Amino acid sequence: MSRSRRRTRASTLQAHPAWRQLRHPFSPQALLQAERIEAIHNMALRVLQELGIRVLDDGARDIYRQAGAQVEEQMVFIGQELVDAAIASVPRAFTLNAPDSTRCLRVEPGSLVFGPGAGCPNATDRLGGRRPGCLADYRNALKLHQSFDVIHILGPSVEPQDVPVQLRHYELMRQQLILSDKPPFVYGRGHEQVRECLEMIRLALDLDEASFSAQPWCYTVVNTNSPRQIDRPMGQALVDFARAGQLSIITPFCLAGAMAPVTVAGALTLQHAEALAAITLTQLVRPGAPVLYGGFGSNVDMRSGAPAFGTPEQIQMSLGTGQLARFLGLPWRSSAGTAANIPDMQAAGETHMALWGTLMANANFVFHAAGWLEGGLSFGFEKFINDLEALQTIASLSRPLDSSDDALAWDALGEVPPGGHFFATGHTMARYREAFYQPLVADLSNFGSWQEAGGRNAYERATDIWQRVLEEYSPPPEGDARGARIAEFIALGTGRGGAAVTD
Amino acid sequence: MSRSRRRTRASTLQAHPAWRQLRHPFSPQALLQAERIEAIHNMALRVLQELGIRVLDDGARDIYRQAGAQVEEQMVFIGQELVDAAIASVPRAFTLNAPDSTRCLRVEPGSLVFGPGAGCPNATDRLGGRRPGCLADYRNALKLHQSFDVIHILGPSVEPQDVPVQLRHYELMRQQLILSDKPPFVYGRGHEQVRECLEMIRLALDLDEASFSAQPWCYTVVNTNSPRQIDRPMGQALVDFARAGQLSIITPFCLAGAMAPVTVAGALTLQHAEALAAITLTQLVRPGAPVLYGGFGSNVDMRSGAPAFGTPEQIQMSLGTGQLARFLGLPWRSSAGTAANIPDMQAAGETHMALWGTLMANANFVFHAAGWLEGGLSFGFEKFINDLEALQTIASLSRPLDSSDDALAWDALGEVPPGGHFFATGHTMARYREAFYQPLVADLSNFGSWQEAGGRNAYERATDIWQRVLEEYSPPPEGDARGARIAEFIALGTGRGGAAVTD
Repeated sequence: MSRSRRRTRASTLQAHPAWRQLRHPFSPQALLQAERIEAIHNMALRVLQELGIRVLDDGARDIYRQAGAQVEEQMVFIGQELVDAAIASVPRAFTLNAPDSTRCLRVEPGSLVFGPGAGCPNATDRLGGRRPGCLADYRNALKLHQSFDVIHILGPSVEPQDVPVQLRHYELMRQQLILSDKPPFVYGRGHEQVRECLEMIRLALDLDEASFSAQPWCYTVVNTNSPRQIDRPMGQALVDFARAGQLSIITPFCLAGAMAPVTVAGALTLQHAEALAAITLTQLVRPGAPVLYGGFGSNVDMRSGAPAFGTPEQIQMSLGTGQLARFLGLPWRSSAGTAANIPDMQAAGETHMALWGTLMANANFVFHAAGWLEGGLSFGFEKFINDLEALQTIASLSRPLDSSDDALAWDALGEVPPGGHFFATGHTMARYREAFYQPLVADLSNFGSWQEAGGRNAYERATDIWQRVLEEYSPPPEGDARGARIAEFIALGTGRGGAAVTD
Repeated sequence: MSRSRRRTRASTLQAHPAWRQLRHPFSPQALLQAERIEAIHNMALRVLQELGIRVLDDGARDIYRQAGAQVEEQMVFIGQELVDAAIASVPRAFTLNAPDSTRCLRVEPGSLVFGPGAGCPNATDRLGGRRPGCLADYRNALKLHQSFDVIHILGPSVEPQDVPVQLRHYELMRQQLILSDKPPFVYGRGHEQVRECLEMIRLALDLDEASFSAQPWCYTVVNTNSPRQIDRPMGQALVDFARAGQLSIITPFCLAGAMAPVTVAGALTLQHAEALAAITLTQLVRPGAPVLYGGFGSNVDMRSGAPAFGTPEQIQMSLGTGQLARFLGLPWRSSAGTAANIPDMQAAGETHMALWGTLMANANFVFHAAGWLEGGLSFGFEKFINDLEALQTIASLSRPLDSSDDALAWDALGEVPPGGHFFATGHTMARYREAFYQPLVADLSNFGSWQEAGGRNAYERATDIWQRVLEEYSPPPEGDARGARIAEFIALGTGRGGAAVTD
């Protein structure tokens, strides 16, 4: 392929503004009857009131206590009035802002946001193999996030383990703000680091404090420690994010049979109770703080205890979570996922199944939508590219179809004789350039041509694509300016030895 | 793995009676507004009336003419009254019988039937490579169809090219009737072969003529030659199957941009017109003859003309076809598919996308659901195994979920302390064996264990599975008896030199 053709093709890959704000193409599907959803909600309320939830952070417990919850040592028992009030004050719709205003995301019923695979300690690609994540991998993952419009928010795809943990938050923020103009992610690793991260975003975006805290400019993910526990960093993140008006995405990680009951309905009950407890905390701190209801539920293999993804049970968990979110009237988050160790048919199959589960459930945020491998232990660059094909297909589906009289093609139907073809009709010539989705990694050539060209599979072909995208990546216009605005802050913080991580 | 454990595991793979008759887990989704569906229907009627359809078979044309259609040379112009009468007489629900009565399939709104990848001239597997299909491959494919309950009907997965074409129908029928007890497939290769095939089925099942023709015991697929043409073997098959009360599955193969207009709405219009023409013929022959409305629509790559599958356009075609079928009130057929040349992420991705399109569209028959590669030019044994994982996942989803109070797990939630696990609770112990779908080919082990065990991908692992299933295959109880009942018929026919194929 000539150099110029490669350039043309790569630029096609990287931008499709119509994919920047998606709406669900399908209506939400039900797993359970409305009465059983209410039964789960009521049992979750009973769990919070009678069994309670353990909250390890003193400050968070104090907030519950001051609001009237009963606190016994680390256990917090939350009455229905507190939960009801919290649900009532959570915003039903809001905008997640971005450094580039064309990347802002409206969050409301029917909206669909794809987030990259996140939280992976390792990175893997076909040439470099599997290794502990480093800063270079983290940067490359961010460049990939930035390069495809169908990825809507940034995520910590690869943990930069080569950066000391007390300084890591500086690089996590700096790289996101320099390399991308999409909404950044902040780890909830304790008061000190969160406070510094929020300050870096505010400075980089050149916002005064009131403008920053009036709307969300970033997000964090809060995983409860199922069953029935909120640990210190998670409790602190809930408080800090609510106070700053930033977005907390509440995600109990309920694996049926392990940290949750073996039944899907039971796992949903636990997940719902934990999500309600966390949501309540945010609204006690600041009524109206933006928060997503969420869940990441699946099952384990009962022989080995290994987590499974893309299973019927994960799809059922997504469907049930969607029903519970709509019962509350709240926007919500779900996840794709796979347990596969390499980008093979298992990886694709599980990821597609889980993804379709989130679509059937009408999740507003779909996390781990591209690049996740090994149940999140590794971020795969070829997996990321292959997963984009699915996301771009969904994005194309979410656009309205032309069904005008002209699209019904009466003239072309009359013009082509029986057994003929439509290639040369005016109807085709006027439309063929934009008619169809252009695949990213799929090879449509026949077996002979494919074999002659090297017979490479989608895993192998994806290597070329991510390498080319990285090679042709160009930073967003204001990236360096944002970096410059936080350079001194980071230098001073580094000089002080950084910020402690809360255990 | 010990021999005895392998046996136990293999028998688990092969039978799951709950999967023998499925219902759709999701409600049908709309692509277009009802008014536009009606517009497509009306334009299709206009196509039949004003543009006409070319019918190559003299006998089929005579039937249209005798019913009042205008015939000019090979062109047939069909008025709306004929179409309306035909739609009114097509059965809305029926049973497709099988040699084993537990394999009979109820076809009605909401029912879901999976058919294997079909019509492939080549076979391919990881060890044997890609080769022209032969009788041994055809037999092995049938054994695989028979071994998994989630495959509901037989299909011509691999063409036995080593059998002379005038004798091939004997082996196609004999092998299906001996090796399986699921509903067999008959190729529409002209009056002579079809008549002999139907007679072989009647003899093998030991039915008198009235019992045979009272209900469908087999099916054929009729592909129109888009645009606007029904060739001789297809026309003859429509007539023969209707006359014998057997099931015709009408399938225009409309690739937008090539044999159909470049717009999805235009391709749907053409597909609908062709399907209505073929359905009308069947009902003119015998009102009430069982027939499925159908379509297999996708798009081509406009640069190369190559067919594409699993695309947004294929999903849209499925959705629109479903709406048109429901507009008519008829059961209908759709297809999965992939253009990939090997079982890789592209193969899995496209197949899952296309499959989910058929689910969203609530297709009653989903063809090419397992094993299809290269847009149908090859049947892949490892592809078949991997696709089964998806079908079994869907089958599991179609079973009702336990949401009883007991499933909500109050006792277990109280029994497990915060941060604990549910492995040992009574609630888990009572349910863990049957709690979750057991994957067929997915490997859930962690990276280290997986690597230590050889680091094999899903393509490689599937080889073991199909080999084991073939090794442990046992023929159905009455298979040999069915074979014996047609042995003389086949010997006599072979002695006469077989039966001609219609061009």
